[in-house]
Amino acid sequence: MNQIKLFSPATIANVSCGFDVLGLCLESVGDEMTITKTAQPGIRITEIVGTDLPLEAEKNVAGVAALALLAHLQPDCGFEIRIVKNIKAGSGIGSSAASAAGAVFGINQLLGAPLTNKELVHFAIQGEKLASGSAHADNVAPALLGGFTLVRSYEPLDIITIPSPNELYVTVIHPHIELKTKDARSVLKENIPLKKATIQCGNLGGLISGLYTGDYGLIGRSLHDELVEPIRSILIPQFDELKAAAKTAGALGGGISGSGPSVFALSKGKETAAKAADAMSAIMLQTSVPFDVHVSPINPTGIKIL
Amino acid sequence: MNQIKLFSPATIANVSCGFDVLGLCLESVGDEMTITKTAQPGIRITEIVGTDLPLEAEKNVAGVAALALLAHLQPDCGFEIRIVKNIKAGSGIGSSAASAAGAVFGINQLLGAPLTNKELVHFAIQGEKLASGSAHADNVAPALLGGFTLVRSYEPLDIITIPSPNELYVTVIHPHIELKTKDARSVLKENIPLKKATIQCGNLGGLISGLYTGDYGLIGRSLHDELVEPIRSILIPQFDELKAAAKTAGALGGGISGSGPSVFALSKGKETAAKAADAMSAIMLQTSVPFDVHVSPINPTGIKIL
Repeated sequence: MNQIKLFSPATIANVSCGFDVLGLCLESVGDEMTITKTAQPGIRITEIVGTDLPLEAEKNVAGVAALALLAHLQPDCGFEIRIVKNIKAGSGIGSSAASAAGAVFGINQLLGAPLTNKELVHFAIQGEKLASGSAHADNVAPALLGGFTLVRSYEPLDIITIPSPNELYVTVIHPHIELKTKDARSVLKENIPLKKATIQCGNLGGLISGLYTGDYGLIGRSLHDELVEPIRSILIPQFDELKAAAKTAGALGGGISGSGPSVFALSKGKETAAKAADAMSAIMLQTSVPFDVHVSPINPTGIKIL
Repeated sequence: MNQIKLFSPATIANVSCGFDVLGLCLESVGDEMTITKTAQPGIRITEIVGTDLPLEAEKNVAGVAALALLAHLQPDCGFEIRIVKNIKAGSGIGSSAASAAGAVFGINQLLGAPLTNKELVHFAIQGEKLASGSAHADNVAPALLGGFTLVRSYEPLDIITIPSPNELYVTVIHPHIELKTKDARSVLKENIPLKKATIQCGNLGGLISGLYTGDYGLIGRSLHDELVEPIRSILIPQFDELKAAAKTAGALGGGISGSGPSVFALSKGKETAAKAADAMSAIMLQTSVPFDVHVSPINPTGIKIL
């Protein structure tokens, strides 16, 4: 096999109380990537369709992740990468992660899969470091592994996959405003009250418990971010209204997707998730801000070979 | 039924990364309580064997918890409580919680169980408030419900029971030094770095995941308290040596039991837990500090009717 075509999915990081540790994988939004083995060594990004991103491998998240993998595997060949970007850069649903994860996944497949998908996370996060200044794993891990993933630890990197109930659906709305990950990080406070950390731990424990047991009520009660959402949501003009509208429509709860500006809601059942999408869209239609909205089940497997 | 005799178990709160939210119930250590329905209204503590605690109901943790329950249920009778205290006060394995939980459990049973054990937590924590100045639930919840319990939230009170694998054993050693819960609380810092809260969340998520899946390795890797243990352990002279000895003996990990001075370790299998007990005892024998040590499986059901 000399060429592979992939669907590399969008992901939601910072799932409410799971700030910096919990991510999930979407099914209905993602990039298409074609990766081709070449006799010429190194990485060449041949084309990126749908957005204006640098083609030089060293300046491109897919390129940087791929180069990190090549430095480790030392193959006697190189790779060309072509990306059709359906996930908008800066949307907060893991655009850079999809590129980075897809690149290392595809190359690993073309080399006979010497590494596991979990091992690939280590290389994919090098792309994230280029994109946002922080080698965070909570988008690339769900993209590579599917489902919900917990980053138990960074040193050493320890990723845990968490099951989720079948009827859990995601609604995610992307208001087309610019909000850079670096800026969204800069508003956070370095120190927080111990009391709030304890509340966050209680909710994260509840959310993970609810995911294991399929207790939708518990999932909903636990979707409360004490630490980051109150500060960061100020950067998203319609945040409170979007979240409230989704809950009024029946969603279990929601929060900021990644570092924003996208806002997500979780619902039991596709129908409720669609109602949440309608309710959130109605809020955005009252503004002049363009947006797009997606309804998706949890993607249980992550990147797919097409 | 006019009289009930109970075994009210010791418990471990602040299970490592589960500071203030995660507790567990022991099987082999506990108080014996006898509760008798009386025509005379109110609560009378008739005797406390084995320790020197106040008998006035308003000054006794069992009495305060019982009075809170009576105020809610308004029965046309009263209760006498006799306690044989096997759990030493100030040991850090839930001595006050056992009394408070046992009192409300017994009274509820004698009244035909109008409330669930989960509902009783609300009344038992009134006893904890008297004992430590904080109405914490992470001892009374596992005493009443058994197993591991997560305090998902205090407002409103939301307790989640977490399963644990069958071969999980607890070793707990109690150095006989005085360490008041109030003092152990006063050394804590009010503010902590966000970065550390995130590390704590990762570990708590990992621990809960390991408990659900029976992944002993993950349980062990997750037993890391970033927030409280580094500060509070200074108050327990042999802490580092005790923890290291348990791990060298094969324990998965451990930490401070409650707010100390007891130190606990979790192990896979009774044999390893006993080895950890021997190793921790050897450390204590190098000092002149008396101690006792217990090995126990996780108690799956909590308080037992004898």
